Parts: sequence; C-alpha cells; structure tokens
Amino acid sequence: MRDFPSPGFELGPNAYGKSGIRVVRVMRDAPRHDLRDLTVHTSLTGRFDAVHHRGDNTAVLPTDTQKNTVYAFAREGIGTPEAFAERLARHFVDTAGPVETARVRVEEQTWTRTGDHSFARGSGGEMRTAEVTYDGEAHVTAGIEHLLLLNTTGSEFNGFLTDAYTTLPETDDRVLATEVAAAWDYTATGDCDRDFARARAALTEAFADTYSLSLQQTLYAVGERILKAVPGAREVRLTMPNRHHHLFDLAPFGLDNPGLVFHAADRPYGLIEGTVRRERP
Amino acid sequence: MRDFPSPGFELGPNAYGKSGIRVVRVMRDAPRHDLRDLTVHTSLTGRFDAVHHRGDNTAVLPTDTQKNTVYAFAREGIGTPEAFAERLARHFVDTAGPVETARVRVEEQTWTRTGDHSFARGSGGEMRTAEVTYDGEAHVTAGIEHLLLLNTTGSEFNGFLTDAYTTLPETDDRVLATEVAAAWDYTATGDCDRDFARARAALTEAFADTYSLSLQQTLYAVGERILKAVPGAREVRLTMPNRHHHLFDLAPFGLDNPGLVFHAADRPYGLIEGTVRRERP
Amino acid sequence: MRDFPSPGFELGPNAYGKSGIRVVRVMRDAPRHDLRDLTVHTSLTGRFDAVHHRGDNTAVLPTDTQKNTVYAFAREGIGTPEAFAERLARHFVDTAGPVETARVRVEEQTWTRTGDHSFARGSGGEMRTAEVTYDGEAHVTAGIEHLLLLNTTGSEFNGFLTDAYTTLPETDDRVLATEVAAAWDYTATGDCDRDFARARAALTEAFADTYSLSLQQTLYAVGERILKAVPGAREVRLTMPNRHHHLFDLAPFGLDNPGLVFHAADRPYGLIEGTVRRERP
Amino acid sequence: MRDFPSPGFELGPNAYGKSGIRVVRVMRDAPRHDLRDLTVHTSLTGRFDAVHHRGDNTAVLPTDTQKNTVYAFAREGIGTPEAFAERLARHFVDTAGPVETARVRVEEQTWTRTGDHSFARGSGGEMRTAEVTYDGEAHVTAGIEHLLLLNTTGSEFNGFLTDAYTTLPETDDRVLATEVAAAWDYTATGDCDRDFARARAALTEAFADTYSLSLQQTLYAVGERILKAVPGAREVRLTMPNRHHHLFDLAPFGLDNPGLVFHAADRPYGLIEGTVRRERP
Repeated sequence: MRDFPSPGFELGPNAYGKSGIRVVRVMRDAPRHDLRDLTVHTSLTGRFDAVHHRGDNTAVLPTDTQKNTVYAFAREGIGTPEAFAERLARHFVDTAGPVETARVRVEEQTWTRTGDHSFARGSGGEMRTAEVTYDGEAHVTAGIEHLLLLNTTGSEFNGFLTDAYTTLPETDDRVLATEVAAAWDYTATGDCDRDFARARAALTEAFADTYSLSLQQTLYAVGERILKAVPGAREVRLTMPNRHHHLFDLAPFGLDNPGLVFHAADRPYGLIEGTVRRERP
Repeated sequence: MRDFPSPGFELGPNAYGKSGIRVVRVMRDAPRHDLRDLTVHTSLTGRFDAVHHRGDNTAVLPTDTQKNTVYAFAREGIGTPEAFAERLARHFVDTAGPVETARVRVEEQTWTRTGDHSFARGSGGEMRTAEVTYDGEAHVTAGIEHLLLLNTTGSEFNGFLTDAYTTLPETDDRVLATEVAAAWDYTATGDCDRDFARARAALTEAFADTYSLSLQQTLYAVGERILKAVPGAREVRLTMPNRHHHLFDLAPFGLDNPGLVFHAADRPYGLIEGTVRRERP
Repeated sequence: MRDFPSPGFELGPNAYGKSGIRVVRVMRDAPRHDLRDLTVHTSLTGRFDAVHHRGDNTAVLPTDTQKNTVYAFAREGIGTPEAFAERLARHFVDTAGPVETARVRVEEQTWTRTGDHSFARGSGGEMRTAEVTYDGEAHVTAGIEHLLLLNTTGSEFNGFLTDAYTTLPETDDRVLATEVAAAWDYTATGDCDRDFARARAALTEAFADTYSLSLQQTLYAVGERILKAVPGAREVRLTMPNRHHHLFDLAPFGLDNPGLVFHAADRPYGLIEGTVRRERP
Repeated sequence: MRDFPSPGFELGPNAYGKSGIRVVRVMRDAPRHDLRDLTVHTSLTGRFDAVHHRGDNTAVLPTDTQKNTVYAFAREGIGTPEAFAERLARHFVDTAGPVETARVRVEEQTWTRTGDHSFARGSGGEMRTAEVTYDGEAHVTAGIEHLLLLNTTGSEFNGFLTDAYTTLPETDDRVLATEVAAAWDYTATGDCDRDFARARAALTEAFADTYSLSLQQTLYAVGERILKAVPGAREVRLTMPNRHHHLFDLAPFGLDNPGLVFHAADRPYGLIEGTVRRERP
C-alpha cells in the first residue's frame, strides 16, 4: 500500500458525517403525549489529511458514534430543532479535537394530533428544517421545504423577451403553482418555534395575496414578507419551481376552456431561485 | 412479419389504458374558487385478439384518446371522484364497441384553503381513491392511501409463537405506527364525499382508541369501524405496514430509555394485510 | 377491550409477513469472490382469526423471526433465487403450525465484476424476480422487472378506432420504448439461472426483431418467444408501459424533424398488459 | 400592487431556468442507428432586478423558450454532452442581452445496443454528467453519478477516535460499498467521450485495487487516479456515501458468520465528501 499524496497532487476541501438519522422523541411526562419526528444529518470538517493520505483513523470520530450521539442527546429532550442542532454541533467541535467545524441539519415532519397519544400525517410532505454550523460561533439557518402552493387566478405572464425560439403565448390569467423551499439565516431573538410559525404564515399569505406578474416577483414578495415577520432573519433564500398547469386544449372537441381544465405537468419545469436580504448599511 | 399465435400458444387475460393522467379542475363560478386535483388511470378489456395476434388496430381506442376523454369530461365538472370515474367507465363501454369492461381509478390530492383562490398542501402525502369497474353494471370501490398513523403508547406485543430463529423480546409498551391503505367496496347510498369523510374519521378514531395487542387486531378493529360508519360498504381491504420504531439502546452511555427515544426504521418492515366484511346471510 | 368480531361482521382473506429484507451473501471459498444481492419479502396465510379478533398472538410467528430466518438460511448459501425462495416457503409451512401457505418473493440485483472481489452496477435498475408459493406443493414464478427497451424505428401505429375525442395522428415510423415487467409460471426442468438467461435473451431479441404495428403485438411476440425459450414455462404475464417519445415540433423554428429529436414523456403513459400461455389440451 | 423593494431590503443572488428537459436524439444516417438520451437543465443569471421588483418581464427569456432552444439545437446533433452544454450556454449569453452567465447541465443515460436499431438499459442507474458555465469564457465540469461499487474484502476500519458514545467495534475485514458521485473541472484537450471513458475506468479500477483502511483513503486514491487518467482535469470532487453492509449476527441460531451474510442498510449512512486537486505551483 503506497502512501498519498503523489507529488503534484493534494487534498482539497472535505467533510464527513452521518446522513439520515431517523430519531423520534416522545414526550410522555403528561397524560397527553407529544412527539418530535426528526431526520438528522451531521457533517464534520477539520484536520483530516492523515486519513485521506494514509488511512490513519486516529483523528476520525466514526459516523456511527455521531449517530449514537444524536440518540443520546435526544434523551435529554429536543427543545426546538434549532437548539438541538446547535447542541450537537457544539459538542462535536468542543469534544473531538480534530473537528474544526460541525454542521448539523435537522428535518422535522409535523404530526397532527388525533388523540391523547395518537397522531396522523400524510406520507412525504412539508418539512421544517434547521441547520446550525458551529466553528466557535453558531450560524443558524431555519427553513421549510416541500410546501406546495397554488393560486387558481391572480397571475399573468406577459411582455417577456422573445427570440427565434419563442412559441409561448402571453397570458393574463393562469394557475400559478410551486413547491417552495425557503431558508433564512437568523439569530433567534426568542422562541424558534414561534419564529417558524410566523415565517410560514408570512410565506403562505404573501403567496396568496400577491397579484403576480411573474414568479420572480412573487418570490421577492414572499422573501420580504418573511424578513418582516422574523426580526432576527437577515437573508432568505427561496427556490420556487414553476409547477406548470397547462390549459388543456378542448377546442377539437367543440368545448371552450375558460380557465377550468388544466394538465398538471411534471417535467420540464421552470426553476426560479432568488435571495432577499436586509440592506447592509 | 409472421402472424400469431403459433400453434400451441394463445392469448390470455389482457387490458390496456392510460396511466397517470394529471387533471386539475378549477371551480370558478363564485369569487371563492375551489379545485379538484386528480390523477386518473384507465384500463379497458374486451375483444382485443386481433391487435395482439396481427397488429390489427381496428378495435383499439388509443390511450391518447382515453386521455383526451378524461380532460373533456372534466370540462363538465368532476362531481365526486366516484361519480367521475363511473361516467368515464360507462362512456368507454357504451361507445367503444370492442370494449367489454372499463376500469377507471381516480386518485385525489386534497388542498387546504389559504385564500379565496389560494391553496396549500405538502408534497406527496395522503390521497383519496375511487375506482369504478363497469361491465354493464358499476362496481365502486373507495379508499384512502399514504395515511400515516402513530400511537406513542397503548400497544403491546406478547405471547407470540417462538422457534429457533426467534430473538424478538416481548414488549408491553411500544410505539405503533403504520401507513394505511384502505379500500372498501360499496354502493353509494348518498353523498360519496360525506361517506369518505365518515370512513376517514372512523379509521383514525379506531386507530387512536384501540388498545392494541397486535397490529392485526388493530386492523380488524379499523375495518369493522369503517363498515359501521359507511352503511353502503360491504367489505374493506386494509394494508398496514408496521413502520417499526425501535427503542434505541442508550445503556452503553449510562442512560435509561423509558419509551422516549426511538429509531424509526425504513426496511425491512412488517406488512399486515386483511379484509373485514359483512357476514353474508 | 371488547372482543371481535361484532355480530354481522367477519374476517376475510388476510396475510402477513416481512417486506424489504436486504440480504447480501458473499461466496468467498475461492480467491475470486462472488455475491448475490437480494431483497426478500415473505407473506404467510393460515389460521389467524384469533389474533385479528382478540389480539391472541399464540399463532403468530413474528415478522422479525421471518427476517432472522432469511438471514440464517442465507448462511447455507443461496443457490438460485427460485431455490432459496422455495426453501424458505417450505420451512414456514412445515414448521409453523398455523401457517397454511407461504409466499416468498426474491428480487435480485445483478452486479458486474470489476476485480477478483470487486463489483459495479448502476443504482436502481433491472431486477430478476423469483416467487414461490408453497401450500404443500411449490408454485414457482420467475421474472424480470425495470428493463427498459427502445427501438428507434420499425414501429407504426395506424388504423385505430377513432371517435369524437381522437386527436392522435397516425404514424408509420415512431420510437417504441417500454419498461418491461415479465413473470412466468413454470416448473424448473434444470438450472433456473440458465432458464432466466434464456428468457431474458428471448425477451430482448423478440423486442428488437419484431416489426411492430402496435405495442400489443410486440407484447404477444415477446410472450411467445419466452415460452419457446423456457420449456418449463406455462404462462407469461407481461406489463409494457408505453414510454412515449413524442417527435418535437421544430417547424416554428424553420427546422424539419425526420425522426431525429424526441421529447421523452413521463406521464401520462399507455399501459399494456397481457398474458401469453400454452394452449391447454 | 405595490412596488418593491421596500426600504431596507434588497435582492441578492438569483437565477432561473428550465429543469428536466428530456431530449432523445436519434442518429439515423446509417442503417445502424445510434442515440443520445439526455436530461438538460438550464440556469441563467444576469440583470433581473426589474422582474423581481416590479414584475417587469422585458428582460426575461421564458423558460419555455429555453426548452425550445434545447430541442432545436439537438436537431443539429449533440456531439459530446460537454460540447452540447457549451453551445447552449454560449447561445443564451450571446443572444439574450440581460443574460450574463448561463449554466447548462446535461445528464446522459447510456443504452446498450441489442440490435441495429434496438437498445436496452435498466431503469434509473448510472449517469454521465457534463456542466458548462459560460460567462464570456466556458468553465467545463464532467462527471458520473449513481455508480454503485462494492468490494467483498480488502477493507478495514481500525484505530479510530473513541469517546463516551462509541459502540462500533473495530474490524479488519468488511464489505465496502458506495454510490459514487464524481465531478471534475477540466479543459478538454481532445475527445470528451474518450476522457470520460478513461475517468470511469480509473475510478472503478482504483476502487477495486485499493486496499482500504478507511473510505476517506479510498476516496483520495480514486481522486488522484482520475486526475492522472485525464490530463486536462484540474480538480475532482467526490461524494461517497458509505452504504453500510452489517454482518448479520447468526450466533443466536448456533451459526458462525465469517464474512458471508450481510444486512445492506439504507439509512443512516456515512457520507464522505472530498476534493483532490493538482497542486498549484
């Protein structure tokens, strides 16, 4: 077994961790139970040249240990996803010598109560996210993913650039639908759960009450509204795929179609990405 | 090109249709819009030997035409999923000569209202199903799929058969979680939307208030409850994968785990399937 | 806790088992290792009224034990997927008193050798299947799934039934593509691995050399060819979704498109299902 | 409709384009046809403040037009994925005034020939990638994704860091399996198809013949080998999830398990990411 690196080559940025740790924490202190359903991902960076070059594992905290740590920390309680992610990230940096930065991402699936100890939800679906990167200081991002939003009217798309490949007709009334992913960098000034609830409400309300001339415009409006709802948020990054709803052509069958019957397409889809942030002074 | 069948061979059961027709119907008669979001699958059987044997398409109504028919029928309105499926199934049998039986399956995704013309839902998730097979008479099945249910307590698993390969310990308190698929054959005696709402409520309530000695027992209880809630239902078929939540062993870390911290496993999973029906006289 | 069934209700058909058991068996007797990568599903039926009605588990062999059995049996070696499935199915019926029928399905992912103990494959992909149902006698089905086949020419679709909803033009040259699932009931007369190889070759060859007037015709030709290649096979069931490749309309850009540029569509898709069998005397 | 931005807020980085454009190009000049099966994603950045702030679309080349362009350009032929991506990226920057940078990603699925105009492959599976970002200059990245690799022996994991949460035992012989994603920045010095073939061979060979003390070490070895095989490559980024194969404990059944029977786990999984690059002088 030959040692690395060979002359002329070197190791660049690298990281390792455990992905997809499925932890469910039940709170059963009261007769009315509660639960947190989380999927956790850890990722560590630091001084890991020896393992890449020579397979020397002395600096490697195994990903299995990272997994164990998540379950052990869950024993003490989750708190908010943000707080849980931060506790874990701090732990890896503070206790494992070679680790310089730890990133912990928590995805939460929310259940609806159906009884004192009973809950329901659809499979898949909307998730809340929290991600903390700790490098001596904690950098917190909160967010939401897989939230579908749809307006049946109040959306136009006109006056766009045309060229030799343009066939799209203009429209002054279309269905606008998207699957939102949003993430905002922030400093929690109070309760993260309350901040999340405010951000989610701002998001859905802004989508519902913005008369849209383009999905980009809606994206910007949503971003500003989230920043206004969460004072500690500095910047929000939004991804809004355009889930096209094509008006189905019923003319061959002698039928009109005044905004009633749509084909919901899968692929291809427009993908709109943008950032809204507070102006830096 | 040689003709078929060769001596000694023959065509057996066969069917064809269009799968995955994504139709969204907006109701915009009133200022407060509504919508139905459906995925439709059609399947026709009949006298189709000529096309299999000789590629003679004279008896074949193309699947593209079946798709067009779904969109055209949506123009008139959906009504309930059951009614829409039945109208389509009757149409194919009544108008396309070679078609003897048509099966139309409708899957509905439900949206939550967030404004007069605005809606939200998680991606994926719970769906309502309706399937009508028409062969001169309509056979209706209604159902629900991808509904996750979880009890944090109120579930045991004890006294089971053991053999040389048994390692599972008995438990008198576990998390019970499942992703229900249910379908019931029925004759609508009134409003299918109301029947569906009653069946869904019966299902979630029965899961929540049954003290469970086994998932099979819970399945049976759920089935009876659905039949009692929907008078026109004759038989309900239930599939309940056991989404195992394993108590994570925290003893190596000096921690107890009195039903608090669980690993939610993906695979393998127990799969419990059963039918509950009215006794035939 | 009330006993079931309530008057007027009864248990119908039911089954239970373990799904998604991921077992990889390495053969390392020789310096050149080999492996079998299997996903196993078990399902048992029998006298299970007591557990459904009263949560009485005395007749229940836990699904966890079924899983253990699969791994323990793998220790002795897999043999062919068919043989492995049969050994397991027989075991459950012969040793667990209440079990009357066992169905064991084995899905195999095939790896390509890249070294003496090294292998590669794409994720997902084609799988070989074997399913044995044992009820005192073994009923064997073998098959293949997720095999994509595509012909760039040699396919027409003409002379079909038309009605008021027809818009599809006829074509005398199209791309024909499908994702085949095939399963054949059979009695192994020799080596199941060899039979599988012959069936797969017959399938791909029949698809490649059949000039197609319809996907139904191709399906029938494929079915006959498999039966001829595998003497012990009695009946083959085929599912062939029509993965539509639409000629993209380049006329708006002043370009022709003589069968060169296609849009490969996801949904909706035509679904053709059929059975080819030996004539019964 | 109020204009944006509100005082104190501003637009940050943003982009838009079309994702999931499924284009199949048939080459039928010779009796022996060939094909390229591509999924294309476009993304444009530039001066797009007006559309975000006021819904002014005059600078917006619709994603529908981007899609049309992909199909129209395919008419002229694909060449290599890298060349196709670059032609498209240049076009968007050179012809659409407000576009400053275009990123085009091409994913290719490879088919195996089964006849003069017939092809087969498994669904899903390995893909080749090419991504070109053009901003006046073309930046080319090539890669491979969803390639599963497995060694049945020749892998240890020992001498790692331990703490209070460590339970993982050391091992001197384990199955090592991963699903590789690799991408290398490079300047094509000749034929991109040949470079890709060399990179893929280097990757699989390095995985097969590296005796592994850790997946990080294997990752580094793979990276160096790709750089050596492709002279124009400057840096390779590798993602190697550790698809854990756990030795199944057969002791409770009186059986040993000397590296023969494994449980292939889905989640959680270790995730190893790293970069290998040429030293900068």
